[in-house]
Amino acid sequence: MTSDPLHRLMLELGRLPGVGERSAARLAYYLVRSCQGKKGKSLASDLAEALLTVEREVGLCDECQNLCAQVRCAVCSDGRRDSSIVCVVEGAADVRAIEQSGGFRGRYHVLHGALAPLDGIGPGELKITELLERLKKEQIREVILATNANVEGDATSLYLASLIRPLNITTTRLAAGIPQGGELEYLDRATVGRALADRRTF
Amino acid sequence: MTSDPLHRLMLELGRLPGVGERSAARLAYYLVRSCQGKKGKSLASDLAEALLTVEREVGLCDECQNLCAQVRCAVCSDGRRDSSIVCVVEGAADVRAIEQSGGFRGRYHVLHGALAPLDGIGPGELKITELLERLKKEQIREVILATNANVEGDATSLYLASLIRPLNITTTRLAAGIPQGGELEYLDRATVGRALADRRTF
Repeated sequence: MTSDPLHRLMLELGRLPGVGERSAARLAYYLVRSCQGKKGKSLASDLAEALLTVEREVGLCDECQNLCAQVRCAVCSDGRRDSSIVCVVEGAADVRAIEQSGGFRGRYHVLHGALAPLDGIGPGELKITELLERLKKEQIREVILATNANVEGDATSLYLASLIRPLNITTTRLAAGIPQGGELEYLDRATVGRALADRRTF
Repeated sequence: MTSDPLHRLMLELGRLPGVGERSAARLAYYLVRSCQGKKGKSLASDLAEALLTVEREVGLCDECQNLCAQVRCAVCSDGRRDSSIVCVVEGAADVRAIEQSGGFRGRYHVLHGALAPLDGIGPGELKITELLERLKKEQIREVILATNANVEGDATSLYLASLIRPLNITTTRLAAGIPQGGELEYLDRATVGRALADRRTF
């Protein structure tokens, strides 16, 4: 069966996260239809080209380790960004999320993961050496630890904070509390408890 | 921004049905991660190859018009299938659904759509001429009209039935009624009404 190109496409699509057997079949049929009939370039070939370009061109920024197609990424090459604040995140998607919030004008450092000893991810698997080198080399006054608010993220931040402490650099972390639009009735106990403990004066 | 390969991949993925901006970003990051580090072939390149193979090799079966990589599809080439019964469906995904039910040993004819005058899809856009040629040329005793149970599907079946009537071939359609596991309480009125009107003796 796997010699059938359509079936093989379904199998490959099924390897994507959140794409089950039925969605893979649906996407595959949609992509094949894009190849039939019309003369212009099909979605299938556009997508194939985009995939190959990404594989060929996307690497890591020399500076912040974010995914990018140049030696240095757009943020690190932008002279108007504040190079004295570094926001440490787990992945490239987190950079995107923070950029979209519009609330940050400093630079990033991408760890490419979080500590998870049970999955075999220790400090050596993350871009921690690169972070420490930057902190020693560059004039940095604040490091924002913006890892995810789960066990792995918290552990990673705690570990990084212990490494940064001797360098005499201010270390902060994202505020925890009620998310925008959140209703107390539907929030989990941990979030409400944290919001209460960290309450601020008006 | 579109000269950025990663952003372009997100845009292409976002063209897939059911893939919004956030899912596209998530899939793109997943695919890029598959390119980093490991030596073996990445999911990105496997997927690109599968897409290009499909575009290059998949065409329509000469006989039933189903998608296939040969001149005749697996069903039409299978001598053990009953060539006197033809099941007419809207798309290749429907062939898959009926094959998986295991309840049909005849052959298929794929229309590649359903009549939808408002979307500019008339009889000329569907593989109807090919169907009528088969019905005249081959020894066919029954045509099962297995279009979808919606307005377009019903209109298509009615239209086809009127064309097939002069050929003196038995024309049937799929039973309509309560789906397996369906609970009357949650079914729409049309389905319940149809199931009641078409009730059968025990």
